[in-house]
Amino acid sequence: MSVDRNSTNWCGWGWQASRYDFKGHRDYFLSWIGARLGVDALHTSTPPVSPESIELPATRLTDADLQALSVAAGGADAMTTAPRARLLRALGRSLPDLLRLRRGDLPYAPDAVVLPASEAAVAAIMQLCREHDWAVVPLGGGSSVVGGIEPIDPRGRPVISLDMTRMCAMVSFCPQDRCATFQAGIYGPDLEATLAQKGWELGHVPQSFEFSTLGGWVATRSSGQQSNQYGDIADMVVSCRVVTPEGIVATWNGPVSAAGPDLDQFIAGSEGTLGVITEVTVHIHPKPKTHKINAVLFPDFALGSAALSDIVGAGLRMSYMRLSDEVETETYLKMSGPKLIQDMGLSALRVLGYGENKCVALVGTEGDPETVDREVGEAMAIAKRHRGLSLGGGPAKNWHRDRYMHPYMRDDLLDAGIATETHETAVPWSRVAAVREDVRASIHSAVKAQGLKAHVFAHLSHSYPTGTCIYFVLMYPVDAKDSIGQWKPIKAAICDAVVRNGGTISHHHGVGLDHKAWLVHEKGVAGMKLMAAACKAMDPTGICNPGKLLDT
Amino acid sequence: MSVDRNSTNWCGWGWQASRYDFKGHRDYFLSWIGARLGVDALHTSTPPVSPESIELPATRLTDADLQALSVAAGGADAMTTAPRARLLRALGRSLPDLLRLRRGDLPYAPDAVVLPASEAAVAAIMQLCREHDWAVVPLGGGSSVVGGIEPIDPRGRPVISLDMTRMCAMVSFCPQDRCATFQAGIYGPDLEATLAQKGWELGHVPQSFEFSTLGGWVATRSSGQQSNQYGDIADMVVSCRVVTPEGIVATWNGPVSAAGPDLDQFIAGSEGTLGVITEVTVHIHPKPKTHKINAVLFPDFALGSAALSDIVGAGLRMSYMRLSDEVETETYLKMSGPKLIQDMGLSALRVLGYGENKCVALVGTEGDPETVDREVGEAMAIAKRHRGLSLGGGPAKNWHRDRYMHPYMRDDLLDAGIATETHETAVPWSRVAAVREDVRASIHSAVKAQGLKAHVFAHLSHSYPTGTCIYFVLMYPVDAKDSIGQWKPIKAAICDAVVRNGGTISHHHGVGLDHKAWLVHEKGVAGMKLMAAACKAMDPTGICNPGKLLDT
Repeated sequence: MSVDRNSTNWCGWGWQASRYDFKGHRDYFLSWIGARLGVDALHTSTPPVSPESIELPATRLTDADLQALSVAAGGADAMTTAPRARLLRALGRSLPDLLRLRRGDLPYAPDAVVLPASEAAVAAIMQLCREHDWAVVPLGGGSSVVGGIEPIDPRGRPVISLDMTRMCAMVSFCPQDRCATFQAGIYGPDLEATLAQKGWELGHVPQSFEFSTLGGWVATRSSGQQSNQYGDIADMVVSCRVVTPEGIVATWNGPVSAAGPDLDQFIAGSEGTLGVITEVTVHIHPKPKTHKINAVLFPDFALGSAALSDIVGAGLRMSYMRLSDEVETETYLKMSGPKLIQDMGLSALRVLGYGENKCVALVGTEGDPETVDREVGEAMAIAKRHRGLSLGGGPAKNWHRDRYMHPYMRDDLLDAGIATETHETAVPWSRVAAVREDVRASIHSAVKAQGLKAHVFAHLSHSYPTGTCIYFVLMYPVDAKDSIGQWKPIKAAICDAVVRNGGTISHHHGVGLDHKAWLVHEKGVAGMKLMAAACKAMDPTGICNPGKLLDT
Repeated sequence: MSVDRNSTNWCGWGWQASRYDFKGHRDYFLSWIGARLGVDALHTSTPPVSPESIELPATRLTDADLQALSVAAGGADAMTTAPRARLLRALGRSLPDLLRLRRGDLPYAPDAVVLPASEAAVAAIMQLCREHDWAVVPLGGGSSVVGGIEPIDPRGRPVISLDMTRMCAMVSFCPQDRCATFQAGIYGPDLEATLAQKGWELGHVPQSFEFSTLGGWVATRSSGQQSNQYGDIADMVVSCRVVTPEGIVATWNGPVSAAGPDLDQFIAGSEGTLGVITEVTVHIHPKPKTHKINAVLFPDFALGSAALSDIVGAGLRMSYMRLSDEVETETYLKMSGPKLIQDMGLSALRVLGYGENKCVALVGTEGDPETVDREVGEAMAIAKRHRGLSLGGGPAKNWHRDRYMHPYMRDDLLDAGIATETHETAVPWSRVAAVREDVRASIHSAVKAQGLKAHVFAHLSHSYPTGTCIYFVLMYPVDAKDSIGQWKPIKAAICDAVVRNGGTISHHHGVGLDHKAWLVHEKGVAGMKLMAAACKAMDPTGICNPGKLLDT
């Protein structure tokens, strides 16, 4: 596997050794954002505690329990209670997770970690857990930002973290059917490297790509940055296998069926509550020969949004398409330091009508050169009708190079006392403006209620003919005394505003513990009942990732 | 609504007044098919009984029951027990349905028919049925070919047929979101006419288009003839509303969500077992400006199949794409009479390698003229690489003109003592050859076991990058003494062969009563359990279309 968890940052994003470099303009950006928030970020230092200082709660399993678990998991090296192993699986990577970890404030940790290497071992673990009434929390990379892998059980039973990352093999490869089957614990880079050797590709690249797994993508209905071309992970799933306490659900392996409900689409998004996804067959495509991404400047967000809608509406499958709002546009300019801003000739642009409300979009695709040229050309023509001004390929190159780096920035900013939270939703096109206004206003109001200032920006990505994803980022000064108590009302204000405007509580992050209270707005009371009944049929004693997604 | 059920053929397809005309070559075709089957079809006449001679079982509802039902449904004109109304909803339009109707052999009929005009009326009917423990069988056009609307209850309770066709209004139209919401009982032509007035289109055209409804399409996961471009109905659904005994399931109205399982994809294919679909929001598109369809001749089925796979694999969204196998190709030539065969210069083609195994395909699309020309050109270039020979647009025009007419032929052939059965499945591309061989051999073997001969042909339609639908047609001489007893082992032989080769038991017809026994091969024991639990949560007393899809 590509990720040795021991080399990852125990209290932050990604590799222990990696940091966001701000392109050398850290001080410039910290000064700017500090001024926006009314704090001296540049001279604030709030480092995390030392991991060695954290005392985890003792495991509640007996030696005999652990021995049985080890046998079920496949041997001594497939089970551990080592403190660092438990610590690394005690929380995901949401803002409150980072806040807790950095303070060393960990009320829970898995009672044991198992690392099965086969579906048979997963089934044996599941059987043992059912017999002993232990909860099972499956995880891949553990990058959940919604409280999806917390090793806690509302009923207080012991919790086993089931780490799938040893199950990382390609099981079959069938170019004739444009399909490949993988064990679910394979990380993104390993999956793509395996396919690339044969000239093929999946094309699913969420921002967590390097630190998340196929099974995790399916369990949470993940979307990749190129979803406009290749679809979301739920579109890519051809079939899958799930080990549940009541046996294995193996879905039909074929293109389309009218034989009853689509079980793949019930498993996608089940977040471990049905059981453990062990194997997934995905739709693959030959590796594209080239890609081309243009940056486009719009006078304002409404024009950019209309352009994106028209591009997807025209059936153009742009694999890269995102639109930063005016605040995100300004923020990225500041992150690039003072030089670029001069280079861009902003005053000249202002004269042309691209002033304070200007928004940058990226529009591009990949494939064979001729198709790419034609489709990007058509998309640019549509953009131009909405006053889109081409900035060429330069800014897009920077974005493409840095596209997995932004999560690291959260840690750098936390070191300077600034919290970065994200929240994404999807709405029909007709609600984009309203949901953006309401969420922004709700955030500012919730942070102001704490006597503080917030910095809020947003972008559109993952656009569809019928609507789009809108992704919010907010920054605010951390209250060191009660960072979780401070975060909760802000998060609630965002979620309330999202559902008030008809948005989904998550377009691609999932539900977990953090969004659960808002799910009923979207599924309805009857819909929640349907989902709960299906989960209960597979998991009668509620041991599968209890408390996530649904109340159990 | 476009269909007055009283003007439809009580024991056959479509309009009472319409027949398949065989383009004037009825005698020629009957002679040919008779010779293939070893019978004198031309001089056989087996007309149906008179509908007036059929005695339906008496309704089991009391006058007070009927009065209560009438009130719930919305008044005297929303409830009926008239014999013709009950007869017209007693069976669908499968081959065994036609065989039963033609013999006047009707062991059951709905105890009453209700025709609600609002969701509130549907909910009131559902409430009353739950209180009285009556079964509810929803239907739209009633064109099921899998025993989907049979008004029988395995537990012997009275059965109400709930006819949705009075609920046929457009509820909302939002071009900005490329969506429209309709009441579920709207027929295909009415839906498209409503959208066409505004310059828009849904583009879902199953062969049953004229006699089926939006709600029926969703309940059965229908596919239209243009699914390669616009998707199957399950892809078009943005949200829907279902009246269940436990309340209304209203799914989220937006493009894509990661908030738990996708309930739309559980409702699609639920076949009335969760409740009654009352409203559906669908993704629509501007009406295309033009279409272009070419016929292409391939030397054999394998080459044609490879061409279709490469066309979808290249990302070309051909709205029309089907490939007849060699027997279907020959059969359609015979249906066109003797003249066309000469015209086509078959002997010249034979010299070029297009002999007995030649297969005709249709390849085309719709949209703006420039895109259509380019995409059809690219598809034809791919076809050519597989030795596809363009026959131009002529043959395709005939197919396009007749595309809703073929179901009428079943009735003409039944009049001459010949049964026509259809069965469709989908498989990954790698299994197309095997499933075709096995299903064909199984049919010939099952019919031969009865001392008779069969005529079997097939075509590919609804192709996907990962696989394709394969649609079988078989003709055999009807055993007038026991036509149902004769049909059952033939149907079973087909279904066995399909699942033996990894095919779905239905790509777009559904499950109903007829395919139910084979569903477990596809969903597995655990999957069946999951579905049953979800249905039971919405319908604890099992009154919703009982016995279809699942055992209840």
